[in-house]
Amino acid sequence: MLDLCLLGTGGTQPLMNRWLTSLVVRYSGHALLIDCGEGTQIAAQRAAVSLKPVDKILLTHLHADHVSGLPGLLLTMGNMGRSESVSVIGPRGTERLIDAVRVIAPNLPFDLRVSELETEQELMYFLDCDIEAFAVRHGVPCYGYSITLPRAGKFDAAKARALGIPLPFWSRLQKGESIEHEGQLYTPDLVMGPPRRGLKITYCTDSRPTPAIAAAAQNADLFICEGMYGDDESLPKARENRHMLFSEAARLAAEAGGVRELWLTHYSPSLPNPKAYRDIARAIFPNTHTARDGWTKELRFEDE
Amino acid sequence: MLDLCLLGTGGTQPLMNRWLTSLVVRYSGHALLIDCGEGTQIAAQRAAVSLKPVDKILLTHLHADHVSGLPGLLLTMGNMGRSESVSVIGPRGTERLIDAVRVIAPNLPFDLRVSELETEQELMYFLDCDIEAFAVRHGVPCYGYSITLPRAGKFDAAKARALGIPLPFWSRLQKGESIEHEGQLYTPDLVMGPPRRGLKITYCTDSRPTPAIAAAAQNADLFICEGMYGDDESLPKARENRHMLFSEAARLAAEAGGVRELWLTHYSPSLPNPKAYRDIARAIFPNTHTARDGWTKELRFEDE
Repeated sequence: MLDLCLLGTGGTQPLMNRWLTSLVVRYSGHALLIDCGEGTQIAAQRAAVSLKPVDKILLTHLHADHVSGLPGLLLTMGNMGRSESVSVIGPRGTERLIDAVRVIAPNLPFDLRVSELETEQELMYFLDCDIEAFAVRHGVPCYGYSITLPRAGKFDAAKARALGIPLPFWSRLQKGESIEHEGQLYTPDLVMGPPRRGLKITYCTDSRPTPAIAAAAQNADLFICEGMYGDDESLPKARENRHMLFSEAARLAAEAGGVRELWLTHYSPSLPNPKAYRDIARAIFPNTHTARDGWTKELRFEDE
Repeated sequence: MLDLCLLGTGGTQPLMNRWLTSLVVRYSGHALLIDCGEGTQIAAQRAAVSLKPVDKILLTHLHADHVSGLPGLLLTMGNMGRSESVSVIGPRGTERLIDAVRVIAPNLPFDLRVSELETEQELMYFLDCDIEAFAVRHGVPCYGYSITLPRAGKFDAAKARALGIPLPFWSRLQKGESIEHEGQLYTPDLVMGPPRRGLKITYCTDSRPTPAIAAAAQNADLFICEGMYGDDESLPKARENRHMLFSEAARLAAEAGGVRELWLTHYSPSLPNPKAYRDIARAIFPNTHTARDGWTKELRFEDE
């Protein structure tokens, strides 16, 4: 089971009734955070989500509305007693940014391990999950992220019994181990069915629409995508500021294939009521929702 | 007339129901801000106070709960169309801090002029107001600030008439100008009474109590002082963390002489209900108030 909370849904600057866009994803007692604008630690308090277990912070890009909450968050994590290291991953410039963050937040009681993304597409891990970073188009180096929890095939007990595989080996084979015993090699493929559908979240702010985003979002259970402007008349502004319209985000969700649900976020401060434009997106991708601060979701494997 | 708004009253970290301590003082269409922790720009929105006219930012010290809102605030001021320069004044290290702030908030559309306080006591100006910075005791370089709007004596029209001072000179003399006319020197002291009581605000976080604080607060209309802990049993903690008890702040107000009103602020996150301890302070300085986020006050000359 993966669960997630979209801590905020604003872009550009925090508003008194809208926190900046940031996502926390939790798995097995650990958490990762995507972006941390000013106020993210307060948004997390409101959502009753502890950020102490955040092991990994993924930055989409280095604009202040996505990073300026880092000094306060890191200090608060230290005050909460965190001593385990925290990884920070982001585009070129992240090391320089973290040097600046350390000036504002010195003497942290844990290590910060910084790494910069260098290519169009990179793979990382978060416990059992795969993380794919994919470059998007925003005028400055910027990435989206897909987090996938893969799921192995089903164990075929009848087959294992028929092959005479000793019972103590069954669970090891289920975990993907190969075992040699009395001259016999037992491999998982003997008893495991084909991989089953796992869980997948794809996250993308800030960008113009690109084919890479649609490709990354394929088969996502939840695609969280920026929708800076609600109406199609804002296209010139969206182009100028390298952002997306609701309709553009919905088109990406439709084109990706297999997306189950789309949440729009990262609304312009000039957009007080995103819901008023929701139907524009639903005409293109029906299962679209204009997300609000603090929305949560649990993702579970299909038959669990 | 001076007016002020205490945007927040918290110390250490922003809470979902308490912003970090920060004061905005306005005079004649301009504003100065003391400290800017994470969320200060949001607190200002809630208090309906625009921070666009902030010409001067005074920093007490460089701990993150007092400065980490600077990148977001400066960017928002830029987005609001500010183009006039902004001064930032603080203790040793402020230049290095602002270099870090500029990494998070690059390309501001206005100049930042940074100056560092170097001595125990320094004088500056904000329009017609005098600002006195005074060193306090917090383990790192830290300053309190007094903002004073002085008031000239009363113009004595009968005396001016008796001295035969030409009418067109009266207002210039009132403004402090000396005038030479037909071999005659007219100076303000001829027609002006002794200086009258002006307006004064004294602000002090974070510090242990010191005689310099009491001296600085003398005759303050409003003394805003930290009260990190409510009960006297917290003295060891207050000493260790270089903060004050409510009773210590009240004693400073009483010892200063002439203080009219005391507001406590900068409460520990472990102090959910400061009012519960208010009477401890009132026993020492009766006109003590446990301030809350967004409290405002207008200060006017006595007979205006």
